[in-house]
Amino acid sequence: MRNVTVAAAQMGPVAQTETRAAVVDRLIVMLEQAAGHGADLVVYPELALTTFFPRWHFEEDAELDAYYEREMPGPETAPLFAKAKQLGIGFSLGYAELTPDGRRFNTAILVGPDGALLGKYRKIHLPGHRENEPWRAFQHLEKRYFLPGNLGFRVFDGFGGRVGMCICNDRRWPETYRVMGLQGVEMILLGYNTPIHNPPAPEHDRLSWHHNTLVMQSAAYQNATFVVGVAKAGMEEGVHHMGGTQIIAPTGETIASAVTEGDEVIFAECDLGLCKSYRESVFAFERHREPDAYRLITGTKGCVSPEEAVLIDPALGHED
Amino acid sequence: MRNVTVAAAQMGPVAQTETRAAVVDRLIVMLEQAAGHGADLVVYPELALTTFFPRWHFEEDAELDAYYEREMPGPETAPLFAKAKQLGIGFSLGYAELTPDGRRFNTAILVGPDGALLGKYRKIHLPGHRENEPWRAFQHLEKRYFLPGNLGFRVFDGFGGRVGMCICNDRRWPETYRVMGLQGVEMILLGYNTPIHNPPAPEHDRLSWHHNTLVMQSAAYQNATFVVGVAKAGMEEGVHHMGGTQIIAPTGETIASAVTEGDEVIFAECDLGLCKSYRESVFAFERHREPDAYRLITGTKGCVSPEEAVLIDPALGHED
Repeated sequence: MRNVTVAAAQMGPVAQTETRAAVVDRLIVMLEQAAGHGADLVVYPELALTTFFPRWHFEEDAELDAYYEREMPGPETAPLFAKAKQLGIGFSLGYAELTPDGRRFNTAILVGPDGALLGKYRKIHLPGHRENEPWRAFQHLEKRYFLPGNLGFRVFDGFGGRVGMCICNDRRWPETYRVMGLQGVEMILLGYNTPIHNPPAPEHDRLSWHHNTLVMQSAAYQNATFVVGVAKAGMEEGVHHMGGTQIIAPTGETIASAVTEGDEVIFAECDLGLCKSYRESVFAFERHREPDAYRLITGTKGCVSPEEAVLIDPALGHED
Repeated sequence: MRNVTVAAAQMGPVAQTETRAAVVDRLIVMLEQAAGHGADLVVYPELALTTFFPRWHFEEDAELDAYYEREMPGPETAPLFAKAKQLGIGFSLGYAELTPDGRRFNTAILVGPDGALLGKYRKIHLPGHRENEPWRAFQHLEKRYFLPGNLGFRVFDGFGGRVGMCICNDRRWPETYRVMGLQGVEMILLGYNTPIHNPPAPEHDRLSWHHNTLVMQSAAYQNATFVVGVAKAGMEEGVHHMGGTQIIAPTGETIASAVTEGDEVIFAECDLGLCKSYRESVFAFERHREPDAYRLITGTKGCVSPEEAVLIDPALGHED
């Protein structure tokens, strides 16, 4: 038995005017609640420290910069780090990162129970668009405000197992989980901010919860890993963000769920040994995967015609 | 509107002693039923013409050979082809293929409404094992009786859209669907024979239906395609095969389901235009995929350590 008690700390809305100090206070309240239930690890959402600012188009860099962290921990986040270390609990936290040389990333870090930085991830699948599109009820300017992550989908040793991270839109792409699965990941920590309404395709809005659960459950099963999906939820600055925070086992079953759209901590004691039963049978990659048939996955970014596909993978033109 | 009415023709068990002629009669009964409901296309299961023979270890090749087709159509399957052509209905059919030069494949073909062969697929992800394992309640010797398919995951023009095929265990691997998704597939035809009991991991048996629906629904959504999953179901020669035949829309919703474990035809009128709404928004591959981060997927067959992963994809070792 390698048991990890993980807490998913869903957040309710963060107002544009809410200070970092006030948000950090909320995070600490949930940290203490998690500690009271014996948690080893607390998972916070994507961009947890501020409102979901990519919904606005900012003309001025200075206005935009206010949402980014220049150091981690910084003066405003240090109390969270101190409290976690004092309680002996690890955590993962999503935030907007501004590097000393001016690059912007949508980032998550993994901190050990002793306060050590165990890992960092920068969001790879940036959704949305680059230019202001005034016809939308609200913007989704992640492609404008962040560079695609440059650290890959890594895994990190910690909490008695192998832990990975991804962020929000990454969860819709099976490639995300597979790259970590191929490194033996046992628990994937995944914060998100997902408006229920998607302006370019409002016909999908009714399916937000179905899709959220579907992509995380299938990934957990197909990669023999726990998945901890954590929302920033509720009505934030006029935009309704979905909740759906849940902890999923390698069976593809949701084993804990949030039931509100506010700050809410849910828990599960996860036996990382459960991954093995899938990884050594139906998903024994080394026996059953057939990567020679997968060349198109890395060979093209977008759709190609069957004729173009043969140029990328000649096996697709093989006769008999 | 590009509407295709597809029929999923689930089969009940086929006894070891049942003749090809008797099975073909059953297929024709379902074909006529489908025609009566205006079907354009009928999808039959994997290895539809015989009992699921990989459950036995055969000492003699002659005994094994009895389950394979040397030509398609052959004398026993010709009536199916003739009736389909007469009714103007296309179909896909799974069967064991023995080539003139002695190679064995687990194969499916796609036949147009005019009787023309539109496409062929040979199963790539062969489950099970190679050697007789007497401790099992029954064998699963697909790795012994078939070569891995050598035709890749192709797509074919037909029925007013772009159609692909895969077989049984292929459906558990997200790579299967993605390779077809990258070629713009709009409908994936997928026959299967799945014993509920998996001897090496009986702890998963209770989840057969959950996993079956989960992998097909997530794939339909993530690749903006219809998926038609068709079982050979019921108690066949003492082994209980799951049903769960269903037709799934690009929304990730099951839109038609079988409710028996016998011969049963279910239908759906599928608007292939529905694929577009996903393919041009959340799953606009050309805007949102990040194949530079996927190198491990084609770079290794089995799990690797994080250290080995960096050798395959140096980006995983990138500093800041």
